[in-house]
Amino acid sequence: MESNVRMKVIYPCTILHIRKYLKSKAFKITETYNMYLEKTLPFIKSLPEERTLWVTKILNKQAEQDDVIILDEDEKDGFVLLPDSKWDRTNMTNMYLLAISKCPIICIRELSSDHIPLLKNIKSKTEEIVKGKYGIEADQLRMFVHYHPSYYHFHVHIVHCDVEPTKAMIAGHSHLLDDIIDLLSIDSNIFKNRALTFYLNESHPLLTLLKRQE
Amino acid sequence: MESNVRMKVIYPCTILHIRKYLKSKAFKITETYNMYLEKTLPFIKSLPEERTLWVTKILNKQAEQDDVIILDEDEKDGFVLLPDSKWDRTNMTNMYLLAISKCPIICIRELSSDHIPLLKNIKSKTEEIVKGKYGIEADQLRMFVHYHPSYYHFHVHIVHCDVEPTKAMIAGHSHLLDDIIDLLSIDSNIFKNRALTFYLNESHPLLTLLKRQE
Repeated sequence: MESNVRMKVIYPCTILHIRKYLKSKAFKITETYNMYLEKTLPFIKSLPEERTLWVTKILNKQAEQDDVIILDEDEKDGFVLLPDSKWDRTNMTNMYLLAISKCPIICIRELSSDHIPLLKNIKSKTEEIVKGKYGIEADQLRMFVHYHPSYYHFHVHIVHCDVEPTKAMIAGHSHLLDDIIDLLSIDSNIFKNRALTFYLNESHPLLTLLKRQE
Repeated sequence: MESNVRMKVIYPCTILHIRKYLKSKAFKITETYNMYLEKTLPFIKSLPEERTLWVTKILNKQAEQDDVIILDEDEKDGFVLLPDSKWDRTNMTNMYLLAISKCPIICIRELSSDHIPLLKNIKSKTEEIVKGKYGIEADQLRMFVHYHPSYYHFHVHIVHCDVEPTKAMIAGHSHLLDDIIDLLSIDSNIFKNRALTFYLNESHPLLTLLKRQE
């Protein structure tokens, strides 16, 4: 019998994890590229390197190597594909994978048409292996990118399109990989030209910085 | 004591309502503007007028006038704001309103920079009245447009940003009003130039039409 209850234990648990699971009020922010350059980017650069150490370790083959589904070591278009901790790895309609780019792109704001080969590489190789390994067709997948993400090393979320919706998949926090590729092919600077609207929890350190700027 | 259970009775109930609430498999479609012109638009035009008769009646002041919150009769930038049937009209964090444009714009594909005044009018007047009437600040609102919508007369959904996420708010079905205004101000033809990726249920009549075309 399949279990209907799943418990997640986070250890060691930091203040960041606690913030992530506390119910807190959200506020809408419309961030222009200038706001990104003046407030967001300095904030991202001020974050301690330890915050993405786990990513670096995976990319350098120092951690979680047993879990790796794809390791494409190309310096420009390479990426690592592995299961997200949210997936129990048994129920296919809950499938949740992460594709982390080899190249240290900070976030969606840094993407240009130069990154289309990387994005297409993530899309096609992931679609292929997910079909072969889990029997899930490409048109059953939802691939998306968060802005703002919980860590600033470019990565793509891959879920079965029947996964129950969460706030993390909502328009304004989530951008479909297909849309990103398409928009970049129309305008290489679209993520510098456009404003991005999203909702930040009151506990998010960027909120005060950006709210003052609007 | 506030009730935790809400029952929705739909009467008379059509096959469209039943389809909407049945759990069914979804498939990803990436629709180019050519696919829109060749398949989607003829499909929309083939729909019986009765499908949007309720909208016409509201706009012509023949129905639901007691519910109307804003009636801006400007032929170009006007709209009607009223509560959505999903809202119980008491719980503010479940607030759900609809803004229906006076001008018969079919859907997001038909928008150009000419519509920015309409979109900004919907945004600013709705923000103002929601603050005055319900005490909800503008930065607590999520305004979005569906593609594909359930009826093809341009309308904007307005919810409190704390409303529980549903599939209808997910990236790929939902486009933030702020993003639409911003993208149109960068490229008046963006919704003709870009492909739109979304997920259609197997029961949606457009699925077969578009799937064959991809």
